[in-house]
Amino acid sequence: MTFVYKADPVRGARWAELFAERAPHIDFRIWPDIGDESRVRYLATWVPPERLAERFPQLQAVFSVGAGVDQIDFADVPAHVPIVRMIEPAIAERMVEYVTHAVLSIHRGFAAYDAAQAAGRWQPMVAPLAGEVRVGVLGAGQLAQAVLSRLGLFGYDCAAWSRSAKSIVGVQCFAGQESLPAFLARTDILVCLLPLTPETRGILSDELLGALPRGASLVQTGRGGHLDQQALLRRLDGDHLRWAFLDVTEPEPLPPEHPLWRHPKVRITPHIASSTQPDTAVAAVLENLERLARGEPAVGAVDRTRGY
Amino acid sequence: MTFVYKADPVRGARWAELFAERAPHIDFRIWPDIGDESRVRYLATWVPPERLAERFPQLQAVFSVGAGVDQIDFADVPAHVPIVRMIEPAIAERMVEYVTHAVLSIHRGFAAYDAAQAAGRWQPMVAPLAGEVRVGVLGAGQLAQAVLSRLGLFGYDCAAWSRSAKSIVGVQCFAGQESLPAFLARTDILVCLLPLTPETRGILSDELLGALPRGASLVQTGRGGHLDQQALLRRLDGDHLRWAFLDVTEPEPLPPEHPLWRHPKVRITPHIASSTQPDTAVAAVLENLERLARGEPAVGAVDRTRGY
Repeated sequence: MTFVYKADPVRGARWAELFAERAPHIDFRIWPDIGDESRVRYLATWVPPERLAERFPQLQAVFSVGAGVDQIDFADVPAHVPIVRMIEPAIAERMVEYVTHAVLSIHRGFAAYDAAQAAGRWQPMVAPLAGEVRVGVLGAGQLAQAVLSRLGLFGYDCAAWSRSAKSIVGVQCFAGQESLPAFLARTDILVCLLPLTPETRGILSDELLGALPRGASLVQTGRGGHLDQQALLRRLDGDHLRWAFLDVTEPEPLPPEHPLWRHPKVRITPHIASSTQPDTAVAAVLENLERLARGEPAVGAVDRTRGY
Repeated sequence: MTFVYKADPVRGARWAELFAERAPHIDFRIWPDIGDESRVRYLATWVPPERLAERFPQLQAVFSVGAGVDQIDFADVPAHVPIVRMIEPAIAERMVEYVTHAVLSIHRGFAAYDAAQAAGRWQPMVAPLAGEVRVGVLGAGQLAQAVLSRLGLFGYDCAAWSRSAKSIVGVQCFAGQESLPAFLARTDILVCLLPLTPETRGILSDELLGALPRGASLVQTGRGGHLDQQALLRRLDGDHLRWAFLDVTEPEPLPPEHPLWRHPKVRITPHIASSTQPDTAVAAVLENLERLARGEPAVGAVDRTRGY
């Protein structure tokens, strides 16, 4: 039985070590050295190879190496083969670090102090208490819950919005399209942690950004396709929005001449907010292989109609 | 009985409201409108007025409005009058925010991404897991413990150094001069939260900075007088140190032409890491007034021989 890994080869080498230690009975192979294609049962990948069904007739599951599956064309994966998102604690912890840093930067004005420093200007500014800062997270899944829990410890006034109703301790939960305006109206710092689906593409529109209170900020840790970048630039230039922290853009990499790079109210990081950590990812995959062997659904199995 | 407040008048107005609500029997006055000097029993101040003993013959306690008392010349305060540091939860929480932001910035390379952004460069960098980053805090008092507890939640490998032995759950504690080299040798991010005393003045010396591992960083949230700024600049230029986040300098404000402002490895904020919040500060002072009335020592009473 062969397990094929087709993603970053440096991490792949670490996956190989971990499989050798923890599951030596599995024939773990790194793309393109995959051996007999008819023996391949499992694929861990960012983007599947072309002609997937034809190439691996015995395929039993496709594991995404990332938290999202929007990069996978579901039509290429046979209907009986589950597509599994990566749910492992290290992804969530890295995202918590990223969002906490961005929220603190905005709340305490650290990005503004960088500008004052460039001018050699010693100029203390007043910052509200954390309890006076309303953070709103778009999304209420595993990443969003981890982020909300940590921000709650800092005392931020936290809310979440999701498609279907959720309940999270200490968090004001909004659900469904009709509650979106009320959620946005009470949000000073908007954090996007949604999956990218046909329904959420372009959700960070001019209208949505305009429904935030004047002086609000955006932390974009979803996918580039969520955001109307031109609308963001207009809302920043018009002083409706204060700051935008973007970890994802469209396209990626963002071309060197793109106006977002040079905008004084924008902070860009190159899609590094969070990524799978081999140790915890391999543990999650091995646990899912056992679940599949017992005939149980995998943790993170994608509902193809929802798209995540 | 008069309580005199001599510090920032904007905050003073809020103190006045809170005293009127919570302790209407106290004649609360804001400097210089202090009424009959012989009735003044208590003073809350950053720096006491001149001729303190002569001016207020009935003085019973001096409260610092800040966490430190290094700005007060103890010789000016009669020996029988206790000097009380401000110990209140909001000071600690603001410091936790500041240090968490700085540690995350250094750990995840956000300061380096700012430079990449200025060049329009999309260049992901590898960051270690939090558990692989060794944070060391100089100090083990109230602020240090609050900071260590929060950083521990992020998974950082935490240690503290203090003059006398302490024990903090989940933190490797070092005590005394002889253990300083071992503490420094295991520290990737050094956070200074010491009080400024004759003993700690200049403690962040060329020798101390040189005893950190190559590639270490400094978060300076103590007092400007702790740091040899020229030694820091040499250690940064020689690539021994990676980053310095300075919230305090000497002098303050830092003059516009000072080389620290323009150094690419230095981030400066104008002494805003933490400050007393009127609501919690007044609660702490009123509790101390009750303790003093019962003949108990005030919380935060300074040991004049230690200097804090």
